[in-house]
Amino acid sequence: MDISILRLSHRIIRDKRVTTHLGLVGRAFCASRMYYSGDRDPSLEEKIRDVNERFGGGFEVIYVKDPLRLVKRWREDGGRVVHLTMYGIPLPDVLEEIRQCDKILVVVGGEKVPPVYFEVADYNVSITNQPHSEIAATAVFLDRLLGGKAFYQEFTGGKFRVVPSPRGKKLIRVG
Amino acid sequence: MDISILRLSHRIIRDKRVTTHLGLVGRAFCASRMYYSGDRDPSLEEKIRDVNERFGGGFEVIYVKDPLRLVKRWREDGGRVVHLTMYGIPLPDVLEEIRQCDKILVVVGGEKVPPVYFEVADYNVSITNQPHSEIAATAVFLDRLLGGKAFYQEFTGGKFRVVPSPRGKKLIRVG
Repeated sequence: MDISILRLSHRIIRDKRVTTHLGLVGRAFCASRMYYSGDRDPSLEEKIRDVNERFGGGFEVIYVKDPLRLVKRWREDGGRVVHLTMYGIPLPDVLEEIRQCDKILVVVGGEKVPPVYFEVADYNVSITNQPHSEIAATAVFLDRLLGGKAFYQEFTGGKFRVVPSPRGKKLIRVG
Repeated sequence: MDISILRLSHRIIRDKRVTTHLGLVGRAFCASRMYYSGDRDPSLEEKIRDVNERFGGGFEVIYVKDPLRLVKRWREDGGRVVHLTMYGIPLPDVLEEIRQCDKILVVVGGEKVPPVYFEVADYNVSITNQPHSEIAATAVFLDRLLGGKAFYQEFTGGKFRVVPSPRGKKLIRVG
């Protein structure tokens, strides 16, 4: 299954850390790339590239000017679009259906998502119907969708690898 | 099971949104309260109170000056301390053991967690051994610990309730 994330309406100052967390969650939880719209932010892209260099993998961050066009093309190419929103159908009710898809675009918004995204999405899915965090929603969605695959994912090409430890930090140089 | 979160070293400007997301995740994923140390931040506390007023529940945000003392007292009172860190033991390896605890303090750091927390924690647990987000780590931890309880949690005393919907936003007034 190929998974991409689309983060709508990034604002360079207000969202810097939130969008960085989101990209790192995408990378750690087995997505291939994060598209983002709004303000172009080279330091966001640099931050994720830096994590790839240190810990491996080829997770991409790609700026898109016209995110709606991306969503429409994604669907024309046979991909499915899952919009995560507190207003949507609870994940457990649609998870098995979504698992049948080969190619998924996970759409998450900033504060106000334009209504058209509720219309063009194949699924509007809630990770609880409470307000919380697009970072948390994406992580729980991917963890459940992929059955915990992220815990066993190996990244290649990095400089370091963590050795899980009951106490302290063990980091070994691998590249 | 009673669950609290301890967020270390909050910095009022840099961490405002990240710590707010963390509190909202705690609330949505069935924790009872979030303690936080570092800078005292009335606007953070206000933000979470506001969500309680709108959507219900009694999730608390409590400032602590001496977080290490809180951790030590927690253990003296028979509670267990779970420190979430990318360097720790993968959650699947310790989940069943942690499920036996009645009272859990989930500790998450900012950028640099003082080494003493690795020592005083009962469990140093990783939600993957990759760098990502304390918000995501907390959400996935609580989702797995409680077996998805958050999806069926009812909040009382709020003004609004979301009615899950395949398209658009349905919010009803309940109070």
